[in-house]
Amino acid sequence: MKLLIVIVQNKDANKLQNAFAKNDVQQTKLSTTGGFLKSGNTTFMIGIEDERVSDVLNIIKKVSSKREQYMTPPVNLDGGVSDSSYPVKIEVGGATVMEMPMDNFYRF
Amino acid sequence: MKLLIVIVQNKDANKLQNAFAKNDVQQTKLSTTGGFLKSGNTTFMIGIEDERVSDVLNIIKKVSSKREQYMTPPVNLDGGVSDSSYPVKIEVGGATVMEMPMDNFYRF
Amino acid sequence: MKLLIVIVQNKDANKLQNAFAKNDVQQTKLSTTGGFLKSGNTTFMIGIEDERVSDVLNIIKKVSSKREQYMTPPVNLDGGVSDSSYPVKIEVGGATVMEMPMDNFYRF
Ligand code: NI
Ligand code: NI
Ligand code: NI
Repeated sequence: MKLLIVIVQNKDANKLQNAFAKNDVQQTKLSTTGGFLKSGNTTFMIGIEDERVSDVLNIIKKVSSKREQYMTPPVNLDGGVSDSSYPVKIEVGGATVMEMPMDNFYRF
Repeated sequence: MKLLIVIVQNKDANKLQNAFAKNDVQQTKLSTTGGFLKSGNTTFMIGIEDERVSDVLNIIKKVSSKREQYMTPPVNLDGGVSDSSYPVKIEVGGATVMEMPMDNFYRF
Repeated sequence: MKLLIVIVQNKDANKLQNAFAKNDVQQTKLSTTGGFLKSGNTTFMIGIEDERVSDVLNIIKKVSSKREQYMTPPVNLDGGVSDSSYPVKIEVGGATVMEMPMDNFYRF
């Protein structure tokens, strides 16, 4: 067994949690703040069989990899002409995964 | 030393925390949601000497094992006769414990 | 890589988080309660290269070691003479650090 600690942006957390559920990956969600990723983030703890680690990594990669997105910045209220009304490219998402060895896993 | 990550149902959390205190098992309680166990759950992190792991496991087993309980379902408000007024057997409790190796433990 | 789990008193948490940021130590802050240290506490999770562990330990030691402080107790409201109006020495701070081996560290 391995312990996976997975940290993703809040915006990807629900989608990732659903993907875990659909693939029968049991997780516990921790309330976390700041740190590894710039905006608000969510941490999942997963206890998983060694042979399923790569499947879990693929799910995380698919749902929450770093990617580019176009965003329209908020309109400049003074009515002046501004390039900030054009969409700009921003980077969103990204996941940090730490894989730790596990000595024992119990259910009572 | 070992790191134990212990996940139990919220309804067993206080009793377990008291049992840890009485047995001088130092723990840190994390705010967690969903996942390993169906209803709301609580996660404890415990750093403990190797030779005390089985004592801690016994405490967890005793306080928060999965067990059956009789529950009277909410009364049917339309006043009709219903078998739902009889107590039904439900499963409560249950604990997941992950035991991880620890390289060092420091107190400053 | 190592996983460090660091538990400090709430009163030292902000200063420690700033010291981590200044030294480029990436951390995730968990919402935790009670346990290892008497008053409210904060837990940080840090994934770090083996050769930087001692630097991180030094930062923690410097910012949040157990130390003595003088505190003036609240005034006795019945107006009587009381030694409780003199400052008393109390112990504050203190850190618990658990260092765990890590098998893999991924960023997606
Ligand atoms: Ni294993
Ligand atoms: Ni040990
Ligand atoms: Ni290493």
